[in-house]
Amino acid sequence: MTTNRLFTQIQQKKSFLCIGLDSDINKIPKHLLKYEDSVFEFNRQIVDATHHLAISYKPNTAFYECSGSEGWKSLEKTAEYIKSNYPELFLIADAKRGDIGNTSQMYADAFFRQMPFDAVTVAPYMGEDSVKPFLSYPGKYVILLALTSNPGTADFQMLTDEQSNENLYKTVLRKAKTWGNPENLMFVTGATKSEKLAEIRQIVPEHFLLVPGVGAQGGSLSETAKNGMNSHCGLIVNASRSIIFADDSENFADFARKNAEELQKEMSLFL
Amino acid sequence: MTTNRLFTQIQQKKSFLCIGLDSDINKIPKHLLKYEDSVFEFNRQIVDATHHLAISYKPNTAFYECSGSEGWKSLEKTAEYIKSNYPELFLIADAKRGDIGNTSQMYADAFFRQMPFDAVTVAPYMGEDSVKPFLSYPGKYVILLALTSNPGTADFQMLTDEQSNENLYKTVLRKAKTWGNPENLMFVTGATKSEKLAEIRQIVPEHFLLVPGVGAQGGSLSETAKNGMNSHCGLIVNASRSIIFADDSENFADFARKNAEELQKEMSLFL
Repeated sequence: MTTNRLFTQIQQKKSFLCIGLDSDINKIPKHLLKYEDSVFEFNRQIVDATHHLAISYKPNTAFYECSGSEGWKSLEKTAEYIKSNYPELFLIADAKRGDIGNTSQMYADAFFRQMPFDAVTVAPYMGEDSVKPFLSYPGKYVILLALTSNPGTADFQMLTDEQSNENLYKTVLRKAKTWGNPENLMFVTGATKSEKLAEIRQIVPEHFLLVPGVGAQGGSLSETAKNGMNSHCGLIVNASRSIIFADDSENFADFARKNAEELQKEMSLFL
Repeated sequence: MTTNRLFTQIQQKKSFLCIGLDSDINKIPKHLLKYEDSVFEFNRQIVDATHHLAISYKPNTAFYECSGSEGWKSLEKTAEYIKSNYPELFLIADAKRGDIGNTSQMYADAFFRQMPFDAVTVAPYMGEDSVKPFLSYPGKYVILLALTSNPGTADFQMLTDEQSNENLYKTVLRKAKTWGNPENLMFVTGATKSEKLAEIRQIVPEHFLLVPGVGAQGGSLSETAKNGMNSHCGLIVNASRSIIFADDSENFADFARKNAEELQKEMSLFL
């Protein structure tokens, strides 16, 4: 997928919403447990109910791995289902991978060849050779962790790098943008730190930013839009639990659509 | 597993060898492709041939994920096989995971409950709440990335933290050791930087260190032993490709044993 196609979708749907498929089997509606693959069935119904409101879906691999190879099968089926039925959607594997070069290559194959993901989140700690293998697939994207939305950001991401006199996450942004370009590299920048988005935009004016933390984690959408948008939107804002677990009755997908619609309407005001 | 049991095994086998099961399906001997699960069959034969020489095995998840849910099944079978037949072995999932707290909890469940791993490698970038969920399983270990063995270490791990005036990887060691103790926390410290091991030992005198990079990546075993050992050994030294891909004939497991034996003999001199 090109960023142009992504922007076209954003304009058509008046939305820059990503729905996080953190489909915890212990939290999905109980009536779905009768299905052979209840997590897939949950995802299918969520996606069918919301695909016109979201531009992207983001399964987090942890919620699939915790069910072992059966969970991985649900992940594969979900990815296949989304790309077969809604090929315009930007499909992100929230996997936070990263290893030495030849090993990162295997992860890239897993998500970009074995499965039809458009993007994978990658952790920067191991540096350039751990990230580069993911960058060489045309139309595919690394979404590199820069500033995350959890309390632990204070531990390392906010440390000051003596040489640049800047926070580590800014050094990550500055170095990583020399490894790729806006057509193969995006960044994770947490919305709970939306006052920092304006500074981030100065460092990476052109790259798309994936912004978690709106909704259950308490980030503000208007602050995010105000500080993070660029001329081609440049934002993919994720909400997970506040949409997919809006309700646990047989009508859960309707409630998910309702909550997605509210976010989409709010987003349309900024586009 | 307690560190005492691990040390007993080290003394009995006169070895601190970990064998990395980076079992790339494209590199395993061709005659194994006739098996329904050829990666598992490869692992089984490697482990059966070398279990008396090694104290630990370390499948890297990337080499399983690249075959999708079938690969994940090979990983499950490998972990089950090792812990059923050789329960004394210290079984490490080299997964380099790490996410916000509730998500890291799911990864911990995947490796510690769904599968019988004793330890999982974790990336520190997201800080304390991304690591802590892995620390609360009795007898299980986080092995946190501190200094890795790849060229990319220079990008972030070696940056100087202004406040402590030390490299980032040392800040990682100092902070993380306050989150856990030697009975639930170990560190990855690359052997290709063995001149730094003495400094690392000063910061974390008691913790076990997992040392990759011996063999194919060029690290020196004697330097590692000299600088990294403590009173209960404190080292788990990994070799992967130099053992498991020593040969690709029908006798591959014999060659693997031969190479493992050479390393074990060298190790016995330091114990």
